[in-house]
Amino acid sequence: MSTLDGRKRVVISNVAPQVEDGRYPAKRAIGEHVGLSADIIADGHDAVAASVIFRHESEQTWHDLPLSPAGNDRWEGTWTPAKEGFYEYRFTGWIDHFASWKRGLIKKFDANQDIAIELRIGEILLREAFEIASPPDKPAFEAWISAFGNATDPQETFDLVVSDALAVAMAKIRFTDRISVFDQTFRLEVERKKAGFSAWYELFPRSASEEPGRHGTFRDVLRLLPKVAKMGFDTLYFPPVHPIGEMKRKGKNNSLVPSAADPGSPWAIGNRFGGHKAIHPELGTLEDFTELVAAAKELDIEIAMDIAYQCAPDHPYVKEHPQWFKWRPDGTVQYAENPPKKYEDILPFDFETADWQNLWHELKSVIDFWIGHGVNVFRIDNPHTKAFPFWEWMIGEVRKTNPQVIFLAEAFTRPRVMERLGKIGFNQSYTYFTWRNSKWELEQYLYELTKTDQQYYFRPNFWPNTPDILPHHLVEGGENAHIIRFILAATLSSNYGLYGPVYEYGVNTPHPGKEEYTDNEKYEIKHWDWDRYSRTREIITRVNRIRKAFPALQSTWNIDFNETNNDRVISYTKTASEGGEPLLVTVNLDHDHTQGAHIRVPLHHFGIGYDQPYLIRDMLSGEKYKWQGEYNYVEMNPWEMPAHILRVERLN
Amino acid sequence: MSTLDGRKRVVISNVAPQVEDGRYPAKRAIGEHVGLSADIIADGHDAVAASVIFRHESEQTWHDLPLSPAGNDRWEGTWTPAKEGFYEYRFTGWIDHFASWKRGLIKKFDANQDIAIELRIGEILLREAFEIASPPDKPAFEAWISAFGNATDPQETFDLVVSDALAVAMAKIRFTDRISVFDQTFRLEVERKKAGFSAWYELFPRSASEEPGRHGTFRDVLRLLPKVAKMGFDTLYFPPVHPIGEMKRKGKNNSLVPSAADPGSPWAIGNRFGGHKAIHPELGTLEDFTELVAAAKELDIEIAMDIAYQCAPDHPYVKEHPQWFKWRPDGTVQYAENPPKKYEDILPFDFETADWQNLWHELKSVIDFWIGHGVNVFRIDNPHTKAFPFWEWMIGEVRKTNPQVIFLAEAFTRPRVMERLGKIGFNQSYTYFTWRNSKWELEQYLYELTKTDQQYYFRPNFWPNTPDILPHHLVEGGENAHIIRFILAATLSSNYGLYGPVYEYGVNTPHPGKEEYTDNEKYEIKHWDWDRYSRTREIITRVNRIRKAFPALQSTWNIDFNETNNDRVISYTKTASEGGEPLLVTVNLDHDHTQGAHIRVPLHHFGIGYDQPYLIRDMLSGEKYKWQGEYNYVEMNPWEMPAHILRVERLN
Repeated sequence: MSTLDGRKRVVISNVAPQVEDGRYPAKRAIGEHVGLSADIIADGHDAVAASVIFRHESEQTWHDLPLSPAGNDRWEGTWTPAKEGFYEYRFTGWIDHFASWKRGLIKKFDANQDIAIELRIGEILLREAFEIASPPDKPAFEAWISAFGNATDPQETFDLVVSDALAVAMAKIRFTDRISVFDQTFRLEVERKKAGFSAWYELFPRSASEEPGRHGTFRDVLRLLPKVAKMGFDTLYFPPVHPIGEMKRKGKNNSLVPSAADPGSPWAIGNRFGGHKAIHPELGTLEDFTELVAAAKELDIEIAMDIAYQCAPDHPYVKEHPQWFKWRPDGTVQYAENPPKKYEDILPFDFETADWQNLWHELKSVIDFWIGHGVNVFRIDNPHTKAFPFWEWMIGEVRKTNPQVIFLAEAFTRPRVMERLGKIGFNQSYTYFTWRNSKWELEQYLYELTKTDQQYYFRPNFWPNTPDILPHHLVEGGENAHIIRFILAATLSSNYGLYGPVYEYGVNTPHPGKEEYTDNEKYEIKHWDWDRYSRTREIITRVNRIRKAFPALQSTWNIDFNETNNDRVISYTKTASEGGEPLLVTVNLDHDHTQGAHIRVPLHHFGIGYDQPYLIRDMLSGEKYKWQGEYNYVEMNPWEMPAHILRVERLN
Repeated sequence: MSTLDGRKRVVISNVAPQVEDGRYPAKRAIGEHVGLSADIIADGHDAVAASVIFRHESEQTWHDLPLSPAGNDRWEGTWTPAKEGFYEYRFTGWIDHFASWKRGLIKKFDANQDIAIELRIGEILLREAFEIASPPDKPAFEAWISAFGNATDPQETFDLVVSDALAVAMAKIRFTDRISVFDQTFRLEVERKKAGFSAWYELFPRSASEEPGRHGTFRDVLRLLPKVAKMGFDTLYFPPVHPIGEMKRKGKNNSLVPSAADPGSPWAIGNRFGGHKAIHPELGTLEDFTELVAAAKELDIEIAMDIAYQCAPDHPYVKEHPQWFKWRPDGTVQYAENPPKKYEDILPFDFETADWQNLWHELKSVIDFWIGHGVNVFRIDNPHTKAFPFWEWMIGEVRKTNPQVIFLAEAFTRPRVMERLGKIGFNQSYTYFTWRNSKWELEQYLYELTKTDQQYYFRPNFWPNTPDILPHHLVEGGENAHIIRFILAATLSSNYGLYGPVYEYGVNTPHPGKEEYTDNEKYEIKHWDWDRYSRTREIITRVNRIRKAFPALQSTWNIDFNETNNDRVISYTKTASEGGEPLLVTVNLDHDHTQGAHIRVPLHHFGIGYDQPYLIRDMLSGEKYKWQGEYNYVEMNPWEMPAHILRVERLN
């Protein structure tokens, strides 16, 4: 009881955002807003006031963000943090004696009760405020105190009590010794813009050669850079570029019996030429790689590297650090397995090794090495099969000195595991979008991602395909389905990616019985004619241009779904909460047939009245329509253009 | 990194129960079970195991409660704590290498793969377990190790691997250095049985006289004790029994102009005869009071006292401790007000007084005083108008030395405020039940109370009426409504109470325009003929007898609602989770008309098959029926008996 100040009567609880009770920071990218809220109450009937105080890690002083009551004792405020790095924030609340007094006085005045004593109480409250008011406000307080003290005309004094000038001055007063501060300080991690807004393109450099049959090189990729830039991608992601294991190498279509010419899977990392810090000799040299990174940067493209923490049997680590692997009683290293299946070309690290500290440092040094060569974006292969404490430590350490580094988690696994990876530091994550097709699935999944607490730690990156996954609907729906799934990915999520050029050319022959590409590029070198026309590519180019022009498409959280009366037509508004103007998107989910629907336009988002005509401009087709009221008809032919991305303009 | 053991791969989160992230204990009464659960995951595909360890505050060693997977990485267990007081509990999880190995071996064996090396790995795992096995288990481990090492017949060895004996022995093994323990230890407060199961009867002792016109005394109440006991109540609660203020005293019907004979409101506490530690002279002496407390105890009735921390203007505190009140500029003490209304007979304490520590100690000493005179149950008047930090401190301190003391919060206010009072220590609380009438309202409210986290901190006490509240439906529905509302209160909630004898006699004339009794007993002395027959009283007596006989009615959390096809008929099962047999309750919510409905009997709760006939026995009417299948018909006439409380017996 001695240290407790029992006079602080305001109680704060159920604070948001918070991730695992403050164990992890909430996350936002530059430009994104965050809603702050808490339950804030006091005993009795006195007026309560509340604010959030916050400061950037580089600052000494706190800023004050007043909160407003949102009903049922919830208090809310909106904040758009301005700087990268960590902020800390605290919720505060206090009894607002002046507001209580003012409320009571108004009621008494309205009931024609005598307010003489009330005015004397008010004068006392003003004198208290005067003591701590800022110097520029002090003269005004002096005038009010004098007016209260010499009140003669009740109406005149009442007008002063309810005046805006007094309200504004009092709103600045903080009796810090009377303020309740929630016992926990929370953190918000503000990431660079790219963490929240990116368009990824994945290609195999070894397939980049202009001559069929020749192994592609980084120099070949140089030639493709302008084409990738023209499509509008800002992140070019390569599967692992390290030496590929020669022992137990897999052949075409994952065959256990490779031919001598088979190039092997890039994810079987390491051979006599080196491991995770080496370049596969056939791709070129380390200098070629850094040159490519620099050339890409000129085109506003970042190279993203694939980090797969696993070894081919001939990776140098196996001999140099045998203690990092599990050994079987027959003297062999434990390979990856999912009994009864065996993956003998892959040796996992043993994260329970007694030498775990050296293992962790070595794995981190791989990231440091590539940062040193200009890479700031890493796609992490199967992070869910490596120990969580390692990721938490590694990502934390890397971002402490290199906060610009972005980690994308390639975890296609159970919900709690994927969520965890976000909490412990991954900046982006692959998602279940790949398998969410129907309207209700998409709406439900986007709700989970953007309206629940997941928004604070799990940042989605939507991929319609990957070298590992050819979903059934891309097989069934052909080019139209490729276009629909791309538009959904690129407008539902501000981060998305695709694996090309198979995507632009609609390559979609599945391996029998599997959700995978047959003759998979993972096991063989392909050759692509980049000059061949592709409708998909044309639409990708248009949509990426629109994404760059409109801030509404540069955040994922600002989505509201619109009612439609056809389950094959989905519609959503990307609101203006992150700046710019709101956009209206409609997509036909049927890859075979034209579908139409009445959609309900959320007029309030566009500042349009119910009886006011307005102009709709489709940025995909260039067409214009005049609409009025909430319900309007759209129709989309998947053989031409399966979507509208609409600007909405008031007509005067 | 130095202190962190990176090899602990299991991660625990989202632990339940927890109240405000462990700031407050969860609560359960003796005999009640608590479900424990958490999200528990590890990287990769290894088998995970988990348990909760717990100990009573009086114990040194931890007990172990294994958890089971409940789907989607949720792990669950059920625990019925045995002792009053505080328990602490921790969630733990670990990689179960033996289980992973066993699962893999079974798959390999089934796929006809060679398991020789697997058996050698198993032998190593068994040797590790042998090291820490309890002495009685060691010989068995030795035998298994030898069997693995000398395995010749694969089928025989396989049978050993999957044997129950080995599974049981391995389930006891804990490699404590490999176990992840959630970083927070939570507390559970186990209260005495009465906190969870009580039937309250409120009466004004001053109305207990046998002779009309004479002020009732504690000696008069002595005479009524057997009648209260016969009805089945275990808690007899009196409005404040202290001297009643003479200054600004209210007259009949809250009149500001009392006559000299008006006794005043018992909640206007204190006059020249004393304050919160004195007895109103007309009720008797302190000795009479303690004698009554003792006599009640003989009949298994506890006297509950009303604590209203407020003062009449002539309370001795006002002169002795003027600093505990707010003074106005005109030299008067601030009275209670809700502008423009004034309550000049009541002076609130100023919880922002600089002398708050002495105020707190004095208020606590009131409780201590009455504990010293045998009172262990306190109904706290309007706790939401006194500072929360005070309650948290006061209740904590009192229960530290007197854990038997029960505090009931009389807070009819906003949800967050009522919840808070439960979190900071109140053992029971008044609720919104008083105004929840329709089926959907009752089902929704009971869901909120019993299935959300509220169950861990907010223990409802259902009151159909109070001296302050005569709800509209009791006015409209007369005796039938009184019976229906009583049965709902007494079977929906294991704690309930009512204000009598108005209740048994259906007194229900409202004060015009208000939800209150006219000629309210708060302001005048009443006289009751306790010998007059009352159907309500007869049903109260029967239901209280059933409540005492069946553990299913002695907890509030074990409720499941049953589907009915008539919105005027509500039905619920009180399950057997707290012991005893489950009961089926159906109530007609229509106080005017007979209503019938098909109800869906949850056969699984009664262990009855879909095609099996069973016997239904109504403990209210004594009637029996034979039913079969899920859907069965009930009918209730509110003029006779508006409910069934049914035992369900299997027929052989």
